[in-house]
Amino acid sequence: MEKHILEVCFSPAIFCRYDCKDTIVVIIDILRASSAICTAFENGASEIIPVKEIEDAREFKKKGFLVAAERDGFVLDFADFGNSPFNFTREKIEGKTIVYSTTNGTRIIEMAASSYKTVIGSFLNISSLSKWLIKEERNVNLFCAGWKDRFSLEDAVCAGAIAYRLLESEKFFTICDSTYAAIDLWAMAEKNLTGYIEKAAQRSRLREKKLDDCIEFCLTPDFTEIIPVMEEGRLKPLRML
Amino acid sequence: MEKHILEVCFSPAIFCRYDCKDTIVVIIDILRASSAICTAFENGASEIIPVKEIEDAREFKKKGFLVAAERDGFVLDFADFGNSPFNFTREKIEGKTIVYSTTNGTRIIEMAASSYKTVIGSFLNISSLSKWLIKEERNVNLFCAGWKDRFSLEDAVCAGAIAYRLLESEKFFTICDSTYAAIDLWAMAEKNLTGYIEKAAQRSRLREKKLDDCIEFCLTPDFTEIIPVMEEGRLKPLRML
Repeated sequence: MEKHILEVCFSPAIFCRYDCKDTIVVIIDILRASSAICTAFENGASEIIPVKEIEDAREFKKKGFLVAAERDGFVLDFADFGNSPFNFTREKIEGKTIVYSTTNGTRIIEMAASSYKTVIGSFLNISSLSKWLIKEERNVNLFCAGWKDRFSLEDAVCAGAIAYRLLESEKFFTICDSTYAAIDLWAMAEKNLTGYIEKAAQRSRLREKKLDDCIEFCLTPDFTEIIPVMEEGRLKPLRML
Repeated sequence: MEKHILEVCFSPAIFCRYDCKDTIVVIIDILRASSAICTAFENGASEIIPVKEIEDAREFKKKGFLVAAERDGFVLDFADFGNSPFNFTREKIEGKTIVYSTTNGTRIIEMAASSYKTVIGSFLNISSLSKWLIKEERNVNLFCAGWKDRFSLEDAVCAGAIAYRLLESEKFFTICDSTYAAIDLWAMAEKNLTGYIEKAAQRSRLREKKLDDCIEFCLTPDFTEIIPVMEEGRLKPLRML
């Protein structure tokens, strides 16, 4: 049986060093973009259009789209809501297309565009995502969004949790130091994830801005079975049969 | 008492995100550049001139300098020796100036040039380096060289070991996720460092090239008390009184 390559990228600044042409790239930005996207699909969003520029998001708003847009954690004035998963309630979004622009998340999705496939990962969809990745029989890169190109503890720990499951399946192998490090950090964090994430810088940034009410939720495994997949510039919900 | 900022940078690709104007930058490239430099000074080298370009190293050789130069682990044809710490024996180098050019190490030293001060760190000088950093009362950035911009386990673990000592002194604080991660990786590696480093990619690369005879040595704490310090483009040996 041919095994597939598993890698973890700790920062957008390093991503160009990975050849992802034939690789499924999993975007991990758990506080809060990738958790918010998973929540939106679980609550019935039909698709999500990631846009990088604020002006493009504003144009979509003028055309009547529902727009989620923030910069550095703050909702933009023209937007319907920001980046907390709690904004994406069924009442607001069921059956709708959402235009989505965040500080980091949408930039990263664009960076991964030349990969074989781009999907969104978080603790919220960890089991179904891992099963799907194992079934796909492709190389996998777990791409941590980080913060301003810096390493983020919470994304590394989530990558480690996914990497652990993939290696356990024996369908993957790794020779990548960041994969080993991520798995070891997950091993340290696993027993008390909320306590471990307490020291993460993003935890403190969200607390200062009083945006930290969703952290416990973002660390919850398996809130949804949906895997958000990029198709022709839009994220669509994939459910494994 | 004012505490100083402690940060860890996991990759040269991220280094530009750190403001190091008033910071002591510690270059960590333990397999093998920073270990070789520490060894050279312990064995009596008077100074080391890091040069980036192969052609510059060749010019120095023509002028009669002792030249250590390698690319991807292999000694360049005109050089006296390569990058193994075992090359820098007292018989060969005592009292001499060495011109030194490696794949990664010299590039990184150049990147750190605008910092307050640049020094070389490894397990070989870990205790005296840590004591000196605590005494200096400055911000510190532990700059891991990595490999082709990627994260390296062995450098992260060494950074974690130094970071642990600095935080223990209570002269430093950190809000940097990579510092926390490095310390946790060090905690996992500490009891069996050689065994832990076994999985590092650089460990395998050196083994394939039969250049791995020095690894056990590179993981030895306190082979020397010397701290190599950059001064006017040259590394010089500093001994704490």
